[in-house]
Amino acid sequence: MMQKKQWQGFEGRLWKEEINVRDFIQNNYTPYEGDSSFLADPTEATNQLWSKLQELQKEERAKGGVLDMETEVVSSLTAYGPGYICEELKDKEQVVGLQTDKPLKRAFMPFGGIKMAEEACKTYGYEPNPKFHKIFTDYHKTHNQAVFDAYTPEMKKARHNKILTGLPDTYGRGRIVGDYRRVALYGIDLLIAMKQDDLANCGYGSMRDNVIRQREELAEQIRALKGMKEMAAIYGFDISEPAKNAKEAFQWLYFGYLAAIKTQNGAAMSVGRVSTFLDIYIKRDMEAGILTEEEAQELVDHMTMKFRMVKFARIPSYNQLFSGDPVWATLEVGGMGQDGRSMVTKTDYRFLHTLENMGPSPEPNLTVLYTERLPKNFKDYASHISIETSSIQYENDDAMRPVWGDDYSICCCVSATQTGKEMQFFGARANLAKCLLYAINGGVDCKSKDQVGPAYTPITSEYLDYDEVMAKYDKMMDWLAGLYVNVLNLIQYMHDKYYYEASQMALIDTDVRRTFATGIAGFSHVVDSLSAIKYAKVKTIRDENGLVVDFETTGDFPKYGNDDDRADDIAVWLLQTFMKKLKKHHTYRESEPTTSILTITSNVVYGKATGALPDGRKAGAPLSPGANPSYGAEQNGLLASLNSVAKLPYEWALDGISNTQTINPDAIGHTPEERINNLVNVMDGYFSQGAHHLNVNVFGTEKLLDAMEHPEKEEYANFTIRVSGYAVKFIDLTREQQLDVIARTCHDRM
Amino acid sequence: MMQKKQWQGFEGRLWKEEINVRDFIQNNYTPYEGDSSFLADPTEATNQLWSKLQELQKEERAKGGVLDMETEVVSSLTAYGPGYICEELKDKEQVVGLQTDKPLKRAFMPFGGIKMAEEACKTYGYEPNPKFHKIFTDYHKTHNQAVFDAYTPEMKKARHNKILTGLPDTYGRGRIVGDYRRVALYGIDLLIAMKQDDLANCGYGSMRDNVIRQREELAEQIRALKGMKEMAAIYGFDISEPAKNAKEAFQWLYFGYLAAIKTQNGAAMSVGRVSTFLDIYIKRDMEAGILTEEEAQELVDHMTMKFRMVKFARIPSYNQLFSGDPVWATLEVGGMGQDGRSMVTKTDYRFLHTLENMGPSPEPNLTVLYTERLPKNFKDYASHISIETSSIQYENDDAMRPVWGDDYSICCCVSATQTGKEMQFFGARANLAKCLLYAINGGVDCKSKDQVGPAYTPITSEYLDYDEVMAKYDKMMDWLAGLYVNVLNLIQYMHDKYYYEASQMALIDTDVRRTFATGIAGFSHVVDSLSAIKYAKVKTIRDENGLVVDFETTGDFPKYGNDDDRADDIAVWLLQTFMKKLKKHHTYRESEPTTSILTITSNVVYGKATGALPDGRKAGAPLSPGANPSYGAEQNGLLASLNSVAKLPYEWALDGISNTQTINPDAIGHTPEERINNLVNVMDGYFSQGAHHLNVNVFGTEKLLDAMEHPEKEEYANFTIRVSGYAVKFIDLTREQQLDVIARTCHDRM
Repeated sequence: MMQKKQWQGFEGRLWKEEINVRDFIQNNYTPYEGDSSFLADPTEATNQLWSKLQELQKEERAKGGVLDMETEVVSSLTAYGPGYICEELKDKEQVVGLQTDKPLKRAFMPFGGIKMAEEACKTYGYEPNPKFHKIFTDYHKTHNQAVFDAYTPEMKKARHNKILTGLPDTYGRGRIVGDYRRVALYGIDLLIAMKQDDLANCGYGSMRDNVIRQREELAEQIRALKGMKEMAAIYGFDISEPAKNAKEAFQWLYFGYLAAIKTQNGAAMSVGRVSTFLDIYIKRDMEAGILTEEEAQELVDHMTMKFRMVKFARIPSYNQLFSGDPVWATLEVGGMGQDGRSMVTKTDYRFLHTLENMGPSPEPNLTVLYTERLPKNFKDYASHISIETSSIQYENDDAMRPVWGDDYSICCCVSATQTGKEMQFFGARANLAKCLLYAINGGVDCKSKDQVGPAYTPITSEYLDYDEVMAKYDKMMDWLAGLYVNVLNLIQYMHDKYYYEASQMALIDTDVRRTFATGIAGFSHVVDSLSAIKYAKVKTIRDENGLVVDFETTGDFPKYGNDDDRADDIAVWLLQTFMKKLKKHHTYRESEPTTSILTITSNVVYGKATGALPDGRKAGAPLSPGANPSYGAEQNGLLASLNSVAKLPYEWALDGISNTQTINPDAIGHTPEERINNLVNVMDGYFSQGAHHLNVNVFGTEKLLDAMEHPEKEEYANFTIRVSGYAVKFIDLTREQQLDVIARTCHDRM
Repeated sequence: MMQKKQWQGFEGRLWKEEINVRDFIQNNYTPYEGDSSFLADPTEATNQLWSKLQELQKEERAKGGVLDMETEVVSSLTAYGPGYICEELKDKEQVVGLQTDKPLKRAFMPFGGIKMAEEACKTYGYEPNPKFHKIFTDYHKTHNQAVFDAYTPEMKKARHNKILTGLPDTYGRGRIVGDYRRVALYGIDLLIAMKQDDLANCGYGSMRDNVIRQREELAEQIRALKGMKEMAAIYGFDISEPAKNAKEAFQWLYFGYLAAIKTQNGAAMSVGRVSTFLDIYIKRDMEAGILTEEEAQELVDHMTMKFRMVKFARIPSYNQLFSGDPVWATLEVGGMGQDGRSMVTKTDYRFLHTLENMGPSPEPNLTVLYTERLPKNFKDYASHISIETSSIQYENDDAMRPVWGDDYSICCCVSATQTGKEMQFFGARANLAKCLLYAINGGVDCKSKDQVGPAYTPITSEYLDYDEVMAKYDKMMDWLAGLYVNVLNLIQYMHDKYYYEASQMALIDTDVRRTFATGIAGFSHVVDSLSAIKYAKVKTIRDENGLVVDFETTGDFPKYGNDDDRADDIAVWLLQTFMKKLKKHHTYRESEPTTSILTITSNVVYGKATGALPDGRKAGAPLSPGANPSYGAEQNGLLASLNSVAKLPYEWALDGISNTQTINPDAIGHTPEERINNLVNVMDGYFSQGAHHLNVNVFGTEKLLDAMEHPEKEEYANFTIRVSGYAVKFIDLTREQQLDVIARTCHDRM
């Protein structure tokens, strides 16, 4: 059994026998049932630093979204000397460490793709040293080049025609959450020793490709761990040993995360489930009389400030997909243990409280792991924060816990992943609405006129017949699922080869579970379109070549989002059918295929590329985001809408079912208490049906309209809203996306 | 069917339907039965250029073996502008193209291992630009680093203790012969089109790792083909189209080879079987009256001069293994077709004639594919060249043709490979003599005292019992074979990943046959030692720890090399047994395991690391090379020795059985004619028994002694001898190796 003096006062055995943070947490955390009255205001240091950071953020916005960019240094664990928010205030930073040498300066990260890295610089007026072009073209091949080397023409065509979209072929795939807590609990030296032991026990016997690959990956992980020590030493810290107090625990954990964001530019770079873990250290220090509540809150605020600063250099096409510069520094609070105890601690409150101490913010992407059984006080507090800030999201702990246990993290917007035991192959999404049009048009894209899908017989009748459409759609989805899995197999293979996440995988078990995440776009439109074909009359409108380019739908038909089983059954059928088709195929590294209904802000770009649909949606109009019912489809209020989404079985979409709702404050009550209570009741009802996720926005459309027209108003500087999968400052969205958000249903009644 | 105006006058169909050089040769070559009287003397240009090159070679030797080294440019197809032997004579060079910008200047090739590349420079007083260290450490990982990342401690120990030796883990594995003739026959554009077609037809269906890997490799091959065009353009040639005459055919073919040696630094970088092919072009031009014999010979001489100039930057430990700076630019002449026609053409004579026109030379490694059925005139001429120059080797075409067809090339010293249809995973060798000592000492190395092999019970008796030794040896070989295959699996995997031979593989069929070449060292000593244990009395001599460190053998015992079945049966058993053990294991990319009995000059280093043996060989003494009988073991003359070696079944050592013999000129005759006749008779007899290979040296020991003591004498400047697997200038060997060569049997009687 390992013994460390830094562990004094900690209970339990198993976590000392092996790397097992969950066991440490379960043996040592103290649930908190009380209310939020203990919370402390920001310290003077917090106010100063946050004010400085806000100035920088303002400057960043004024400069068109990027404050500064690196052009001379390739990002790595040790590429920079120490960096601080503000040189004069650096002694006040309780948690230190920047991605580069200056705050908000974006690193140069060419391993995902040199062209993308260069384009990102040039977009903002920076010129990377031309030597890097040669190095990352002639000497070192990048992930992007490798993927395009191996793509088939069919894949390129599907990608170009955006039936497969957002594929991680030009940047890091992200969605891997290192168990950053391990750095604090064990210190780097023990982690190295454990990985060395794994290496010693890997591949005895025949050296087959998979064993060789794993051995090399372990060597890279060990190298990364050593690099983390060097990185910490640059800031004057020795993280060889476990953290001995709360301040070190915060700092060590953050260094683990910093290593990830210095070496990978994945779309989602989540922090994970850290609050209950950190609470154990805070509590021990408080009991020892060496930490006050103010100091504890300061640690939480300062680390959170760091998460608010994470930035990557992105290109315009990326920003179109993921608008508002998100990084998905997702961080969870709440949840229950397998033993029935609430895992809410005072530190869960403290993290939510950062939204009060430093105002609303899109990052970190704060997520409440929700269950009706959470302490009433905590549910009320979260509800209060939602109503005040619209910055947090909720996910159903009762749905996820049976699948992922009680130590999962959210690795992107909504996707659960077992912390330290799992990694995910991120796979963007397939546009099933486009696929429906391909089924009708025999694989021809009605926008580009390209033969993208297989040239099956198109539908030639004037009116669509449900059975004929379904038969053809089934075949076209077969094709799409196969192609999609193959594209992802190829991308993940190349990512492992050219852009392996050594720093993150070093903090995950060697014997890792791998999920293969796919995704669905255009969900509600397919459901409503099929319903229209079944229950109404859909006439095809053809262009001069006979291609169906629009529809005239007459008669009424049930729509998804109204708690009407006629439509909702189609929704369940669609999800299960596509998932089954995906599962037929071999997936890279024997990973487990999953899917999500989750489009983030990309619903706008996807919609642009998608023709008119039988549900009445016009060509080019945004798709509804995630699993949301279509704009205007919901006619029966918030609860009916939630009931429809709740019918989608999470078991068939383990990567997540994203639902974003906006409620007019008046619709949920007239006093703060009433609103809090009602929102809690809504969520209790929604999640008890097995629903997976809810983004809660509490504001009226008029506020959005005003913010769009008057972004300069001080009150809108940090006005944060939840969009599909993350939160964003409303004024950072493009006008197009602002209009999309405004067009979404804002429920005026329950 | 492809049609090209450059093909006018060429017969046949299949080679126009697909890439098939063999079919082109068979349809178009003209066997030559006449004698050597047609051959032309060197032209003035040849004499001038060769004289210039000799000056440079002299200068190179004077500077310690390296004339110049690159420190600022990483070698690639297009890294340099044009380079010539001599700027003033450049218009006289009929075949142009250098590895770098200057003759004999060695390129900087870090992809195999940056440390090795740097060490090579530093050894000779050069300092590579330090930026490369960072680039090939932080940005791009090299093959060497990757292999060492994945090695197990057991592998490192086996390597360190030299029971596995010469592993290609710090440089290119080599031994891949691109079908360079394709460049001449088809031109690059057709080759690109064919590879693009392969890419289009690769991996329809499931994207599994092997398909993805192959797609990426094809993309790299196509990139390399495009690079070759650019490379040729630098010299003012457009190789998009097929060669239209002999001069272009020589130049195009050489550009194909040049691409290989600009991008890979494998130990063996063979040219392949080109003479019959090139003869077709010469003959067509002669018949058209646009080429004379002098001009034809000039083309052959000038291309050969280029092969004599191939150089790589090497480190001292490499030079110890492969002494005298060899590159195995192996080039074959002779052989028979499947249809029974001799493939000897006038150009086969012309290539051998370069040894007269420009004197003896180790490179290109000229190899006669021998069969009794070759035209008598040609056998006589080859024999004459052997007697005059000791620069050529013979391999049994009758043994190889049934396995590899009639268009194989020798890809290293002696190993056959189907030209354009096969690649080899080179795997160095296992020291079976050391393995015998491990069997006796329970896996402990008697030199290092390390427990290297498994800790099986050692032999504790004073006298060795044959059955006990054999049982233990069997188990220890089991271990060694398994470890060896695993080491090679790992090396080959990393080589494909980090140092893929795109330029060579671009000139080989996509659907390639892969052999997995292993090798045996210490062969004759194991055979004689087992014979001693069986037929004489072997007493163990132990050190203070009980480790057997020497032997006292009393009594007579049969020895390998005397045509005595009692010993020779053990030899066959040893080969078959080890091969069977190798075959039990999974080999990388489903390759076919083969083995060789072939040690090159590494027999000296291997011997140094090997303790005393029961056959009487002292600790540290050189092993006998390849399949050669042990020094002094042969007591019954040349023919008896040859008969012993001929008993080893080639079928069990498809990678080759190397035999090097030195004959005193007087032993084979007293007139040139007598000697020629006798040598031909010796070879007819030897090869008709199925023997695989023979290095023929014709000189006496006194010449070696004199050359060792007086290297400055003009007559020894180009004094070339055949050592195991290649030819070398005697004065370029280390003294240690010169002494080894001198110690070998020089047959004074038949």
